[in-house]
Amino acid sequence: MLPFARVTIIGLGLIGSSVARAIRRSMPTVRLTGYDASPAVRKRVAELDFLDDIADTAGAAVTDADLVLLCVPVGAIGEVAASFAADLPADAIVSDVGSSKAGVAAALAVALPGVAVVPAHPVAGTEKSGPDAGFASLFDGRWCILTPAGDADPTAVMRVSAFWEGLGARVDIMDAAHHDLVLAVTSHLPHLIAYTIVGTASDLETVTRSEVIKYSAGGFRDFTRIAASDPTMWRDVFLANKEAVLEMLQRFTEDLTALQRAIRWGDGDTLFELFTRTRAVRRSIIEEGQDDAAPDFGRQH
Amino acid sequence: MLPFARVTIIGLGLIGSSVARAIRRSMPTVRLTGYDASPAVRKRVAELDFLDDIADTAGAAVTDADLVLLCVPVGAIGEVAASFAADLPADAIVSDVGSSKAGVAAALAVALPGVAVVPAHPVAGTEKSGPDAGFASLFDGRWCILTPAGDADPTAVMRVSAFWEGLGARVDIMDAAHHDLVLAVTSHLPHLIAYTIVGTASDLETVTRSEVIKYSAGGFRDFTRIAASDPTMWRDVFLANKEAVLEMLQRFTEDLTALQRAIRWGDGDTLFELFTRTRAVRRSIIEEGQDDAAPDFGRQH
Repeated sequence: MLPFARVTIIGLGLIGSSVARAIRRSMPTVRLTGYDASPAVRKRVAELDFLDDIADTAGAAVTDADLVLLCVPVGAIGEVAASFAADLPADAIVSDVGSSKAGVAAALAVALPGVAVVPAHPVAGTEKSGPDAGFASLFDGRWCILTPAGDADPTAVMRVSAFWEGLGARVDIMDAAHHDLVLAVTSHLPHLIAYTIVGTASDLETVTRSEVIKYSAGGFRDFTRIAASDPTMWRDVFLANKEAVLEMLQRFTEDLTALQRAIRWGDGDTLFELFTRTRAVRRSIIEEGQDDAAPDFGRQH
Repeated sequence: MLPFARVTIIGLGLIGSSVARAIRRSMPTVRLTGYDASPAVRKRVAELDFLDDIADTAGAAVTDADLVLLCVPVGAIGEVAASFAADLPADAIVSDVGSSKAGVAAALAVALPGVAVVPAHPVAGTEKSGPDAGFASLFDGRWCILTPAGDADPTAVMRVSAFWEGLGARVDIMDAAHHDLVLAVTSHLPHLIAYTIVGTASDLETVTRSEVIKYSAGGFRDFTRIAASDPTMWRDVFLANKEAVLEMLQRFTEDLTALQRAIRWGDGDTLFELFTRTRAVRRSIIEEGQDDAAPDFGRQH
């Protein structure tokens, strides 16, 4: 029994196209419709052939849908939802994949009054963008967090949950504010720091750009991966989840200042104590199946 | 024509054992001797069988050597060198693999007066430690930086250079102070930041440790890899390269504060401009062969 028979995906980049491919893999009888605001993306998706239909407008894409899944930057969600509101079937469920959730819930409540909305966030991705970058196994073993409002229809929540489990994900449910705090530390702050250090390294006068590139295997190259993520998506995340990001950033800065002081005063014990403690976190992540156990992420040597 | 016929490696962890394995692969006729201060490591190395001889003291290990390669934490280099100084053949060349170079040069000048010293730093590694973690291809395509003093014997420099090229590395020569500045940004600062954020995430009251682990695929897990690196090695690096690390940290903090301000004031353009610029750095690193071109470091999905 499929949770949804007709799924429409709005936004066909890395995540939207991965969802489509995962549906094709795991629920091949689902009728799959898609729309992307970019004509070039729509053309490319037609070539890649992972949808049954590609619509020319968001409204045309949703007319038949059981589930409408918004896979666009969080800053665009309200506007996109408003653009198809008049065409949405009365019993359709609307969900999304945005990285911040309180703002999304508010935007969808305004754009789609009375509609069954179950916001979701599959915690998965790569640094690549666009419909060519997607793949069917992206969500396997990853967590998808649902943040339904307190008065959401339990059946709608169960169906969206079953949908993500069907795509290979594990599902958790929490309130939107807590999601935004958790993701501020596990995703948003890491991206902000990575973008910052790559910028810092690019702007030095005493060390050339070429030196930064050549000797990046000392650790820097790790940060460049997430700093290559989609700029529009990440701009929107930081603007949408401002409070939680600023709170986590304040914590981080305090801790960094403490380490700066330890280095300045030659306090090796403080450094050693932290560096020992952080090893255990890596071990837990690998035990939980949330990263590759191979050294160096399994990079090819 | 081999650059060295008899090589002694002092310190048989990730790097020392990788050098030994790379020598076995590329220069199989080299006579390879090793020593490690830990009896347990010496025992394990005997089982792993990648050396011709394992000595019981550093002095006994160097008596016959053409090249003595110190693969110990930079804070221990002076003491270890002093421990074998009396046994060192007059024509032996001493080198090392330490991640900071000005301090190493000073320590070796004191411990080994009159000896031909060519400090080196292969910019390569993984987050794993110990003799089981090493592998022969670790240095393939990576850069090894030599930092000989201005009055170093050019023949000694050429031989050490040929040695590293023989192990698959590319060789650059620069002065120790510049090396320490370059590596502060490409390696030391990234490690410091990674250790910090993993510590910050572990210490929150509002987000549980279990949540940090489960949702780490949002970006955080990337940082946990280098934050799982050897604590002793990294404590020593920060103490040894204090000035350059503090300078780079100051730059980073200024840049982070600017982004913090942009988030607080909703200045999306500043965020977008940086996030677009940083993508190019990743592309250059991949074009230069310094990282895996596959998405997500080639992690298995």
